[in-house]
Amino acid sequence: MHNNKKTISRRGDSTMSKLSEQFMQQIQFIVEIDKLKTIFRRTKLIHDERYENDAEHTWHLAMMAIIMQPYANEQVDLLKVIKMLLVHDIVEIDAGDTFAYDVAGYADKEEREINAANRIFGILPDKQAEELKQLWFEFEKRETAEAKFANSIDRLQPMIHNYNNKGDTWQRFNITSDMVEAKNAYIKEGSHMLWEYAKHIIEDAVEKGYLNKKA
Amino acid sequence: MHNNKKTISRRGDSTMSKLSEQFMQQIQFIVEIDKLKTIFRRTKLIHDERYENDAEHTWHLAMMAIIMQPYANEQVDLLKVIKMLLVHDIVEIDAGDTFAYDVAGYADKEEREINAANRIFGILPDKQAEELKQLWFEFEKRETAEAKFANSIDRLQPMIHNYNNKGDTWQRFNITSDMVEAKNAYIKEGSHMLWEYAKHIIEDAVEKGYLNKKA
Repeated sequence: MHNNKKTISRRGDSTMSKLSEQFMQQIQFIVEIDKLKTIFRRTKLIHDERYENDAEHTWHLAMMAIIMQPYANEQVDLLKVIKMLLVHDIVEIDAGDTFAYDVAGYADKEEREINAANRIFGILPDKQAEELKQLWFEFEKRETAEAKFANSIDRLQPMIHNYNNKGDTWQRFNITSDMVEAKNAYIKEGSHMLWEYAKHIIEDAVEKGYLNKKA
Repeated sequence: MHNNKKTISRRGDSTMSKLSEQFMQQIQFIVEIDKLKTIFRRTKLIHDERYENDAEHTWHLAMMAIIMQPYANEQVDLLKVIKMLLVHDIVEIDAGDTFAYDVAGYADKEEREINAANRIFGILPDKQAEELKQLWFEFEKRETAEAKFANSIDRLQPMIHNYNNKGDTWQRFNITSDMVEAKNAYIKEGSHMLWEYAKHIIEDAVEKGYLNKKA
């Protein structure tokens, strides 16, 4: 990795003088967020043995939002849901991925992520920085219809992965069915239908031996 | 890789009976498109040495659409641009990534991709299958304002990667500046500003020795 990769040259050539400072901040942000492709999660791909990274995970969620929109509990603004999903993990470039079942990691998660949001979104011109920070914050708060639905999708997707991977993450970290049910129960706040399916996954995964019941 | 991973069990349990056939087609599609994370491009990441896959590439494009929307030549429906970008590479699950400068690969690209669109989007319930196929087709045709802008972003992104990677792909495949300019000229149909920046990249990459002029 080269430290100078982040710096975009903007001196000594003619075309660049036409490009504004604002545009170059936007390019710098686009270059910076490439790092999301290097942040790995605890979940493996369904169709390969490697771990999933945040960027490809996010694409998957955005696709799920399009497909699953009819099952949102309330009517949602799909563009807002998708924007929220697209930005929701960007803070992990600085703050890292906090495993859903990591209690210690959750203790200082908020502080780490707020600092990250300020630094990374702050690369952008003010208005866009503010919009993206607000979207991320709305996602985290889970109060609006869009945030609840986006969070449902974000919780269901790794369950689908683990179910199709014969419980890979659940087995490795000794996650039991009651933990999966408790951690993911807020899926129902965004979509009763998705929660119905999540419960099916838990029940069937226990039956198939992919997920253990509480000892 | 396990062949049985794609199949979702739907027999012999109670909760599943509540879930419709349509819902299970949607889940099957969501599981299937995980494969996009295993389709690799010729472009390397900016912040790591490995090749980029289609899924993370697509996330990056969707983020660029949000950030760069003010520079679209015409007013665009951002949701449509993003949806188009999110689905535009899914056909490559079957058809593979055709390198932008691969003339032979382009000869049967269309036929391979139409078959792929029919199979993959065809997993979905009819109405959604049709919507996603249309979005992909609209992207490919590059006629609407949304398709032109989405294509601009899809062309600019690998240029940004290569520029920040000191011309990695250009050097490996003996791509010269006239080829880059010709192949990417339709960026200007979607955004004059992005084309201005693309020309800056070409000019500055030649100056820095990342990109060779035609011999």
